[in-house]
Amino acid sequence: MQINTNYANLQDSYLFLTIAKKVAAYTQAHPENKIIRMGIGDVTQPLVPAVIEAMHKATDEMAHKETFRGYSPDQGYDFLREAIQGYYAKRGVSLKLSEIFVGDGAKSDIGNIVDIFGEDNRVLIPDPVYPVYVDTNVMAGRHVSYLDANVQNGFLGMPDENMQADIIYLCSPNNPTGAVYNRAQLQAWVDYALRHDAVILFDAAYESFIADDTLPHSIFEIEGAKRCAIEFCSFSKTAGFTGVRCGYTVIADELVCGETQLNTLWARRQATKFNGVNYITQRAAAAVFTQAGQQQVRDVIAYYRKNAAMMVEAFREIGLWFTGGENSPYIWHKVPEGMTSWEFFDSLLNRAEVVGTPGSGFGKNGEGFFRLTAFGTHEDTAEAMERLKKLLR
Amino acid sequence: MQINTNYANLQDSYLFLTIAKKVAAYTQAHPENKIIRMGIGDVTQPLVPAVIEAMHKATDEMAHKETFRGYSPDQGYDFLREAIQGYYAKRGVSLKLSEIFVGDGAKSDIGNIVDIFGEDNRVLIPDPVYPVYVDTNVMAGRHVSYLDANVQNGFLGMPDENMQADIIYLCSPNNPTGAVYNRAQLQAWVDYALRHDAVILFDAAYESFIADDTLPHSIFEIEGAKRCAIEFCSFSKTAGFTGVRCGYTVIADELVCGETQLNTLWARRQATKFNGVNYITQRAAAAVFTQAGQQQVRDVIAYYRKNAAMMVEAFREIGLWFTGGENSPYIWHKVPEGMTSWEFFDSLLNRAEVVGTPGSGFGKNGEGFFRLTAFGTHEDTAEAMERLKKLLR
Repeated sequence: MQINTNYANLQDSYLFLTIAKKVAAYTQAHPENKIIRMGIGDVTQPLVPAVIEAMHKATDEMAHKETFRGYSPDQGYDFLREAIQGYYAKRGVSLKLSEIFVGDGAKSDIGNIVDIFGEDNRVLIPDPVYPVYVDTNVMAGRHVSYLDANVQNGFLGMPDENMQADIIYLCSPNNPTGAVYNRAQLQAWVDYALRHDAVILFDAAYESFIADDTLPHSIFEIEGAKRCAIEFCSFSKTAGFTGVRCGYTVIADELVCGETQLNTLWARRQATKFNGVNYITQRAAAAVFTQAGQQQVRDVIAYYRKNAAMMVEAFREIGLWFTGGENSPYIWHKVPEGMTSWEFFDSLLNRAEVVGTPGSGFGKNGEGFFRLTAFGTHEDTAEAMERLKKLLR
Repeated sequence: MQINTNYANLQDSYLFLTIAKKVAAYTQAHPENKIIRMGIGDVTQPLVPAVIEAMHKATDEMAHKETFRGYSPDQGYDFLREAIQGYYAKRGVSLKLSEIFVGDGAKSDIGNIVDIFGEDNRVLIPDPVYPVYVDTNVMAGRHVSYLDANVQNGFLGMPDENMQADIIYLCSPNNPTGAVYNRAQLQAWVDYALRHDAVILFDAAYESFIADDTLPHSIFEIEGAKRCAIEFCSFSKTAGFTGVRCGYTVIADELVCGETQLNTLWARRQATKFNGVNYITQRAAAAVFTQAGQQQVRDVIAYYRKNAAMMVEAFREIGLWFTGGENSPYIWHKVPEGMTSWEFFDSLLNRAEVVGTPGSGFGKNGEGFFRLTAFGTHEDTAEAMERLKKLLR
């Protein structure tokens, strides 16, 4: 046998492992002290009542022969796809049910989508970025080039006509920077993709954190996007489903390569290598779109957004450059002059007992930056900001 | 952009679509008649009480901040992997926790495992077979050769030294034929793989239907298998999880290619393109291994096995050649002399109002054969067998 030798080209992913080791060592040395964790992008609030109720009800259905459900339809149950269709319709985006694919989370779909593309595509990925985009392309042996995001462009890279790109990854609101593209910026990307026969893979996992009504939640709000974009979304951050696993991918019929609809390729990929999402989870996801569900998940997001607002206020006071926090659960800030991301990590852990994520873990342009997340409690967030202000005064 | 042109080499999968159309047409013409469906391999009995109880309990945990769980560990929670480890230990197979990967079903893992292998492997797949093995390799552009299974070898193909194979798919108990390899036969495969540096991808999804104590449930019961095999298993048929989605894949540390452990490649693949299984589902799966859970799922399997026993008895009376049924939920039988699989399908539907699956849908060696499943009720199975006996008398 031969293995896939492209795996040898992957960079070792020591980021969260190294963080865990450093935190464990500190905790062992200071067992009585309280460390505040703002490093990992996982949610902490429980599932909302509408979701819990739907789960219990669906579980009871699975307990009786008359209401038991076996294999799910490949692309998901109509009751959930209709709810997703309705969610898009509220933003003026009209989708067919066959254009919506229910999956077990945006990470799986974003990782697996590379299957439907040929090997010789030129891939363009923002730097800094969620490492999955790069790693899945390295595994497939594709050439990756990077789109510089930095203070000058507000961590929102834009196309230029000299770029060589067939597959373009965009994430807005961005992980890790929290920066959000506006309509004009996304229109420029769509126009570029249409002119150059490129496809945009649009990661909208954080769309529910957008508070500014002028910002697009979906790339399909942009004219022409159905002909050049695939959108990935998730219930992880919208409804706290990180441990439940449900997301959806949208590919419009208009997206074609020659005569072939990409929708049919993805449908075939999923029918062959995936077997649908848990019935109970699909009922839980549908409950998110009910009136009660929407109100309840908005309340949870408002809770996290209040944390983000505290962080924004603290960083304005501290005076370090930052982005994010206003339409995103992430704050991305410059570390103090003369320090690297990891030096700041150590200083923050040892002197303020707060854990964050060094920006250099997300790409070369992340060096000198740092990510903090708003997924903790109000109390912890407030205390962490006091500690930061004291440290950086 | 360029698409993956290998998808154009896939055969259209009209099998179940054609069956559905023919059944719909017949139902429309005879709305008052009772059709008995023995075509699809989906379960019909509800989830057992131990599983339902675990689901409700875990759902309640997700409703409270103190017990809420976010992202699962990449390879699954220890409580489930320890239960799986204990299940293997009962058969004398000793596994490390790090050798067990919890996933969302055997189909996903069997489909995705191709990612970790290089392009130039020679792939050997039994014919007839579950179509996923072939399709996932065609999508990856690999050359596939076939291992003939037929009446002469009891639909259990064996290795010969002239075969060219780097990756070998085996499914035992087999889908669609229900045939099961014995220890000596699997030992021959393991010995072949070790001599030729090949890897065996062993699909054990139907292991819980094995009644004969002398037959192996796991390839790891065979000497040397840890150095040449990957095993895929599932709760779908064991515990009726077709709509719940949980399975597991085992890769021992001893399985290496040069210096590289395949375990580390798969761990990296899953950490990059997968985000773990639903917490509630993992609790439900762990409940399958409790004393109550084991008793309850064995009762359900005994229910299906009684159907299979009725089918075996009927086919002995009818006198058509068949395999399966004794250690499998499938009966694979010859159609009457002079008929094709599809002609028998039409005859069975129109004259006995019973639906099965034409063997030709599983590969060229399936022509002239037919698959019936034991996943119905006792009443329907008994009636279907009476209808078959009458039709074939």
